[in-house]
Amino acid sequence: MRIIPFLSFIIISFANSNSSGQSNDSLMLRKIFNEAVSNGKSYSNLEYLCTKIGHRLSGSPQAAAAVEWARQAMVAAGADTVYLQEVMVPHWVRGEKEFAKIVNSKSLGSQEVPILALGGSIATPTEGITAEVIEIQNFDELAKHGEKNIKGKIIFCNRPMDPTEIFPFAAYGKAVGQRWSGAMEAAKYGAVGVIVRSMTLAQDDFPHTGSMGYKDSIPKIPACAISTNGANLLSKLLKTENGLRFHFKMNCQILADVKSYNVVGEIKGSEHPEEIIVVGGHLDSWDAGDGAHDDGAGVAQSIEVLRIMKALEIKLKRTIRAVAFMNEENGGKGGEKYAELAKLNNEKHIAAIESDAGGFSPRGFNFAAAKETKERREKVVKWKYLFEPYGINDFSKDGGGADISPLGKQDVLLIGLMPDPTRYFDFHHTDNDIFKNVNKRELELGGAATTMLLYLLVEHGL
Amino acid sequence: MRIIPFLSFIIISFANSNSSGQSNDSLMLRKIFNEAVSNGKSYSNLEYLCTKIGHRLSGSPQAAAAVEWARQAMVAAGADTVYLQEVMVPHWVRGEKEFAKIVNSKSLGSQEVPILALGGSIATPTEGITAEVIEIQNFDELAKHGEKNIKGKIIFCNRPMDPTEIFPFAAYGKAVGQRWSGAMEAAKYGAVGVIVRSMTLAQDDFPHTGSMGYKDSIPKIPACAISTNGANLLSKLLKTENGLRFHFKMNCQILADVKSYNVVGEIKGSEHPEEIIVVGGHLDSWDAGDGAHDDGAGVAQSIEVLRIMKALEIKLKRTIRAVAFMNEENGGKGGEKYAELAKLNNEKHIAAIESDAGGFSPRGFNFAAAKETKERREKVVKWKYLFEPYGINDFSKDGGGADISPLGKQDVLLIGLMPDPTRYFDFHHTDNDIFKNVNKRELELGGAATTMLLYLLVEHGL
Repeated sequence: MRIIPFLSFIIISFANSNSSGQSNDSLMLRKIFNEAVSNGKSYSNLEYLCTKIGHRLSGSPQAAAAVEWARQAMVAAGADTVYLQEVMVPHWVRGEKEFAKIVNSKSLGSQEVPILALGGSIATPTEGITAEVIEIQNFDELAKHGEKNIKGKIIFCNRPMDPTEIFPFAAYGKAVGQRWSGAMEAAKYGAVGVIVRSMTLAQDDFPHTGSMGYKDSIPKIPACAISTNGANLLSKLLKTENGLRFHFKMNCQILADVKSYNVVGEIKGSEHPEEIIVVGGHLDSWDAGDGAHDDGAGVAQSIEVLRIMKALEIKLKRTIRAVAFMNEENGGKGGEKYAELAKLNNEKHIAAIESDAGGFSPRGFNFAAAKETKERREKVVKWKYLFEPYGINDFSKDGGGADISPLGKQDVLLIGLMPDPTRYFDFHHTDNDIFKNVNKRELELGGAATTMLLYLLVEHGL
Repeated sequence: MRIIPFLSFIIISFANSNSSGQSNDSLMLRKIFNEAVSNGKSYSNLEYLCTKIGHRLSGSPQAAAAVEWARQAMVAAGADTVYLQEVMVPHWVRGEKEFAKIVNSKSLGSQEVPILALGGSIATPTEGITAEVIEIQNFDELAKHGEKNIKGKIIFCNRPMDPTEIFPFAAYGKAVGQRWSGAMEAAKYGAVGVIVRSMTLAQDDFPHTGSMGYKDSIPKIPACAISTNGANLLSKLLKTENGLRFHFKMNCQILADVKSYNVVGEIKGSEHPEEIIVVGGHLDSWDAGDGAHDDGAGVAQSIEVLRIMKALEIKLKRTIRAVAFMNEENGGKGGEKYAELAKLNNEKHIAAIESDAGGFSPRGFNFAAAKETKERREKVVKWKYLFEPYGINDFSKDGGGADISPLGKQDVLLIGLMPDPTRYFDFHHTDNDIFKNVNKRELELGGAATTMLLYLLVEHGL
C-alpha cells in the first residue's frame, strides 16, 4: 500500500480519539495507552522470561527460576509489596525425548513422525509400543469397534478442529475432548496406546501437547499428540495399506509433588484499600517452546499494569494485585490456592482479569456467565464506548479464565482479555510458542487494554 | 490456556452464528465463509506468486511473469472471461545492491548500516557520496539550518512514526512526507543526499523502501531509507561525536517506460449484467521481500472471490470483476488505466473494493469520504450486523484504496478491506515481506469478508 498525501485524492484518515470535550476517564485511558506503547517494558520482560529461563513446567528448575524472576520484575515495576504464596504442584517430567514411526508401510517402509507425549501420560514400556492402529473420529466409533477389534491396538483420535467455527477457541472446545479423554475411553476397550491429532487449524510438523486425564478405575495407557502433517499421513496410509503398524516410545514420569509459588505484587489503594482487583496470567508453561504466548505474555502484561500505574503516578482508590499463577497447565493448583487464601483472609475481591489467550492484538473482554455477577458485568460492558476508539469493541462473549475461576465461587466478577484469536492455535503448546512469534506492539496493546480496564475498576468500583 | 470442559466450571462459549431464523443473506454469507476457510485457494495461490515468481516491480521480468500467473489463476478460479489491459509503466531499477556506512566515528571507526534506495531515486556518483550529516525532525528545522549549513551535506530525516497514534496508518501518514519530499526539500538548500528513517514502529535491521518525488525545478539528489536500528545508531553518534561522516553508494537507474498489463477476470451477472462491481489488489510490488502482504495478499484474495462464487454456484445478479492492478507502488498507472477504459467504454461501476492493507485478520471496511457516494456508503454500513458475528465490526472509517481511487471520479463507491493494522509496518516494503509471514487463516478470513461484502453488493445493488 502507498499513501502519498500529495498524489492520492483519497487520504485514509483515522481519527485520533484525543479530541476536546472528553471525560476524565477517557483522558486517563489515553495516558495509559500512550505510556504502554511509548515506554512499555512487557516485551523486554517477556524476552527475559522466554529466552533466559525458557519453558517452565510446574516442578521444574525453570519454574523456580520464573518465580524468582517474577518477584524481581514486580519489585522493579513498582509494587508496594511482593510476596509468594506457597502451593504444592504436580511434577510430571517428559524424560528423554519421545519417538514415533509408522512401520510396515508398503509405500514408505518406516517413516518417523513428530509426536509429543501428552502432559500427564505414563511412559511406554522401555522397548516402546508397536501395534496396529484404528482411526476414529469420535468415541461413538470406538464403541462400534468394540473390545474385540480394539484389544491390543493403538487408537488414533483424528477429529480435526472445525475450520468453519468462526472462533478457533470454539473449534478447540469441540475437539479437545479427544485429548483429555482419549486414553480413558480407549483403555476401556483394551487399547494399548492413544495417538491424538494436534489441536490446531494449521497444517505443519509441530505436535501440540496438553493435559490429559486418567481414572483409577481404568487401566492407564500412554498417549501422545501427533502433528497435523503426521496425522494426515497416517490417516492416508491407513486408508490405502494393510498391515500398517505404529511404534512409539515415551519416557515420561510422574514424580512426587513439589513446593512452588504464586507470585503476587500489590499496590495498596488509598480510599478503599480493602477492595481488591486482580490481574493475572500464569507463570508455568508446557515444556515445549518457551511459553511465550501461553502464557508469558499474560504474566508480562500483568506486571506491566503495575509499572504503568506507578509510571503515571496514578492514585489508586482501590488495591490492585498482579498475580503470576503457578500450575495452570497441569493442575490449576495456583489458582485454587489464591482463592483459598483470599477466603481464609476474608479478602474482598471485586473483580479479576486474566490474560491467557496469547499476546495478540486485543479485540475485547469476555466475562464469566455467572448469574451472581450479571449486574456488575453489565456495568463493565457500559464502559465499552471508552475502548472503541482503540479498536477494542467486543464485550459480548462469555469467558473468564482458568486461574481466576476459583474466585468465582466468592462472587467475584471474572473477566478475560480477548485478543484476536486467529493465530493462537498455531503456537499453543508447541515448540513454536517462542518469543520471536510475539509481536511487540500487539503485546503492548493487550497490556494497555488490561491496564485501562483495571483503572476503571479501581476508580469506580463495582 | 487450558480449556477442559470437565475440570473448569467456566466454559468459554463463543456463539456459533449459524442459528435458526436467519435471513437468506446471513445464510449465504455463512456458506461463503465456510467455503473460504474449508477449501480456500488464496494461500496456495499466494505461495506460488511469492515463492516461484518473487518480488515484481513494474517493468521487471517478474512483473511480466506475474501477469501471466494472474491470468492463469483467474481462469482456474472460474472467471467467464479473463483479459489484459495494456498500460505503460515506469521502469526504475535498483541495480547492484546499495551500500552505506558511518565513517570517521571515534568509537566505531567505520560501521556498515542497512539501507535501501528509495524507489525512483537517482544513483550516487560511482564512487558514492561521503559527507557530513545533519539530522532533522521536520522541514522547519531544515529552513532554520539554511543553505549555509546544509550545502554539501547529507540530510538525515529522522522523525519516527508516532507510537501513540492508535492506528499505525495514521502514524505512517504523519511521517511519510519525509520520504516523499525529503530529497526535494533538502536539495533546495544544497544538500547532496538524503537518508530517511524507515517507516515502521519496529526496531530492527530492515530498511523500508517506498516511493519518493522529484521536481524538474529542483536538483535531483539520491535518497535512501535506513533501518530504524541504523537510524538510532547514527542519531546517537551524531549527538556525541564530531567529524562523523556518512558514505553511501547506490546504483539505481530510471529506464524507458515499459508495456505492462492489468489482469481482469470477469463473471457476468444475470439480471443486471451492465452493473459492475470490482474487487482488486495490486500485482506489482517493491523489489524487496516477495510482496506477500503488499499486495500479493490482495491479489490472491480477489482471485479467491471468483473461485468462491463459482464453487458455490452462486447466480450473480450483477457482474463482478477481479482486477490485479499493475504499478500501484511507483506510478499508479494501472488504476488510472482501468478507470480510463471504464469511462471510454461507458461502463457502469457501482462499487469497488480494494484489499491493500495486508493479509491480516479482517476488522471491517472503510469508505472513500466523497459526498456523492454518502447515501450508498450508508446503505453498505447498514449491512454491518451481518458481519458482526464474524468479529468484523468497524465500518466507521474513511478510506478506500489507491488503485480504485481514479474510479471515484466516476461516482463509484470506493471501499477498502480493513485488516488488523498492528503488524503491517513490520513488513511493508522490506525484505521481511515474505510469504512465511502471512498466516493462512488470516488471509482466508480477509478473502471471506471481501467475498461476503461483494455478494451483498451483487445481490442487492446500491
